[in-house]
Amino acid sequence: MTRARHALSLAARGRRVAVVSSGDAGVFAMASTVFEAVEQEREWRQLDIEVIAGVSAMFAAAARLGAPLGQDFCAISLSDNLKPWDVVAERLVAAAAAGFVIALYNPRSRARSWQLGEAFDLLRATLPPSTEVAFATALSLPQEKIATTTLEKADPTLADMRTLVLIGSVMTRRIDRPGALPWLYTPRRSGL
Amino acid sequence: MTRARHALSLAARGRRVAVVSSGDAGVFAMASTVFEAVEQEREWRQLDIEVIAGVSAMFAAAARLGAPLGQDFCAISLSDNLKPWDVVAERLVAAAAAGFVIALYNPRSRARSWQLGEAFDLLRATLPPSTEVAFATALSLPQEKIATTTLEKADPTLADMRTLVLIGSVMTRRIDRPGALPWLYTPRRSGL
Repeated sequence: MTRARHALSLAARGRRVAVVSSGDAGVFAMASTVFEAVEQEREWRQLDIEVIAGVSAMFAAAARLGAPLGQDFCAISLSDNLKPWDVVAERLVAAAAAGFVIALYNPRSRARSWQLGEAFDLLRATLPPSTEVAFATALSLPQEKIATTTLEKADPTLADMRTLVLIGSVMTRRIDRPGALPWLYTPRRSGL
Repeated sequence: MTRARHALSLAARGRRVAVVSSGDAGVFAMASTVFEAVEQEREWRQLDIEVIAGVSAMFAAAARLGAPLGQDFCAISLSDNLKPWDVVAERLVAAAAAGFVIALYNPRSRARSWQLGEAFDLLRATLPPSTEVAFATALSLPQEKIATTTLEKADPTLADMRTLVLIGSVMTRRIDRPGALPWLYTPRRSGL
């Protein structure tokens, strides 16, 4: 918020300012914080603000994995710094039960070590053990690491702050390949 | 599917082939169809396939509107060509009840004229009348058109095949501006 307010007050004094955010600034990132600040100061509504869309982690991960987001999907931040854990838990269960492919942002950090394991347990109560799960870490960086597994075997310690965790729906399919990561994809057609 | 199979069979004969899709090929688009075809022919698993992420309509729309996707969100295709309407209806209600911001793809076409009106009615049973709604049509084209309204007043005939419809959550806020479209944003913090 300090960064957003600082940028807006510079802009109000006539400067051209950019607020930089990794991924897509509009997805769990700085754009929302900037508009929260705009709402607080009437004069900032006059500013000429442009949001530039980017490629958020879930889409970068999906492209590496195949096409797991070919069907209805949702994105949930596991951080309970910004909302109560009960809300996170309710959304996880509702999304899994309704057949959404689920992307988990902010799955794990040093200060938030139990949330991802708890999320897997909640999902295991709704989805089959064979549900496809992928961990995509540090995408597009030299340390990039991608792992695919199943909900039954999903190990929360594979995730850190730079990881996007993707949970398939019952429709998500896995195509094994010799000597390479499997492809994951979700067919566009379902249940007809 | 014919296009995907044609591309893969050319690639299997050693050609370099690109399958082009508007928005993000991974989101309700051609990438999923390509992998469905890959699964059908064992030799196609050997092909060197790269999916390139793009900016899907919901993120282009979100950037124009402010930051409505700053919190947990989902994407639902309203097309019941590819899945039964019951599944669409169940996902709409589950997503609204759980507090997701909702992006609707394929809201309306000449052959599918009633689905969006029915979707609004389902959402009105769960969300307040004042819920923010936006119609974003033909984004980035010369005919681009954006309209914001509320769930109470949302008129399905504002949508066509090129429209992305965005439904806020109860947290989504509107910042009115003189002589310009209002900003819509969803604060990252909720209910703490």
